[in-house]
Amino acid sequence: MRLVIGNKNYSSWSMRPWVLMKQLGIPFEEEKLRLDFTPGSAFRTRLAEVSPVGKVPVLLDGDLAIWDTLAITEYLAEKLTDVAVWPRDAKARARARSLCAEMHSGFMSLRSKCPMNIEASLPAVGAQLMAGDDGVPRDLARITAMWTEALQGSGGPFLFGEFSAADAFYAPVVARLRTYALPVPPQVADYMARVWSAPGVAAWVAGALAEQDWIGEDEPYRPSR
Amino acid sequence: MRLVIGNKNYSSWSMRPWVLMKQLGIPFEEEKLRLDFTPGSAFRTRLAEVSPVGKVPVLLDGDLAIWDTLAITEYLAEKLTDVAVWPRDAKARARARSLCAEMHSGFMSLRSKCPMNIEASLPAVGAQLMAGDDGVPRDLARITAMWTEALQGSGGPFLFGEFSAADAFYAPVVARLRTYALPVPPQVADYMARVWSAPGVAAWVAGALAEQDWIGEDEPYRPSR
Ligand SMILES: N[C@@H](CCC(=O)N[C@@H](CS)C(=O)NCC(=O)O)C(=O)O
Ligand SMILES: N[C@@H](CCC(=O)N[C@@H](CS)C(=O)NCC(=O)O)C(=O)O
Repeated sequence: MRLVIGNKNYSSWSMRPWVLMKQLGIPFEEEKLRLDFTPGSAFRTRLAEVSPVGKVPVLLDGDLAIWDTLAITEYLAEKLTDVAVWPRDAKARARARSLCAEMHSGFMSLRSKCPMNIEASLPAVGAQLMAGDDGVPRDLARITAMWTEALQGSGGPFLFGEFSAADAFYAPVVARLRTYALPVPPQVADYMARVWSAPGVAAWVAGALAEQDWIGEDEPYRPSR
Repeated sequence: MRLVIGNKNYSSWSMRPWVLMKQLGIPFEEEKLRLDFTPGSAFRTRLAEVSPVGKVPVLLDGDLAIWDTLAITEYLAEKLTDVAVWPRDAKARARARSLCAEMHSGFMSLRSKCPMNIEASLPAVGAQLMAGDDGVPRDLARITAMWTEALQGSGGPFLFGEFSAADAFYAPVVARLRTYALPVPPQVADYMARVWSAPGVAAWVAGALAEQDWIGEDEPYRPSR
């Protein structure tokens, strides 16, 4: 299998299946495309060959292309029945899917105001967003409540016990909370630390820090690197 | 199982699992809440009991609450292994999930400019939107391309042969294309007609037409009923 991704520093959707596969030991080749949305770019040209929507990530398995993070996750869960992509318990699995679907279609304020930028540290921006009323505090409150409840239900160390797709889906949120230094309760900070040091996540973060690229569209706050 | 939904005329997310279950003969009780987002409303109060996010649909199965359309769909697929919620073929299933996930997180222009309103007929609004550049023509082009490709691949009558979750996910889009009379090629119009007369869809539409309610937030175009 081959996973087509964007920049590790910026591409939150790419991060999810990459981290999931790495963390769970699912072998794959990585194909990284520099995020460049201008018509005719290498990003556009290559994606046009493999995806009808032109977005990363795309999972290629033989002649099959799967072009959305949730669909990729379900595909892996079905194909690799010996790997616990989702929690083994049916109820926990239903809850994990609800959380992932909530991420997939929601948290618009956090996603638009706090774009993922792993190498950046923007605590002043975070403080300003927390003082404003554009929805970042509301998204944060829901995320901390969700994580707290899941961790209490499972006993940890991850949302549903062992590292699963749910943690992979929220790993880019952990990255955002770190970059913008958004305030969280200690138990949530502990969970974030565990996510950050999980080998699959740490490997992605190391790749992001090594990148040293600059994508203007994803930099509403920094004047330069 | 019990499915908590909103108004049939307006609630596009509620429509998806309801139509899916009806069409596939999966028994359930319906609990309808009038869409009323004001704090303290019956909608808010009841949803607060069953869902951490306060949105419809919610599927209740014993003490388990599943609060997102995609998660509900996967839950049904797992629970009812003798029902073909997804296409039986693994590749078709991966494609169907990609389409559903694309719907779940995308088509923002169509969703915001053409809210579902089954009883309304707004061709003039549709014509204006097609002449503008707010993204409705782009969303429509992607939808017609997607349907055309899937129907060609499967041979029809539905996107992946038999009626599946993919058709249920796009049934509210069929409703929007009808209400706003957006232009489609004949093969796509034929597919839309098949969806519209599928018993599960027809039952929802009949319920919507019987409702005769008015939700101001979902009525950017009509002055009154
Ligand atoms: N729902 C999609 C979202 C993918 C997405 O938005 N990817 C961004 C990069 S993180 C992208 O490729 N954008 C290109 C574009 O919008 O043209 C998924 O889950 O995979
Ligand atoms: N991603 C959710 C979306 C559900 C949704 O947005 N439902 C609307 C009605 S169609 C709702 O309940 N809105 C209430 C609110 O936003 O407070 C799903 O797939 O179920």
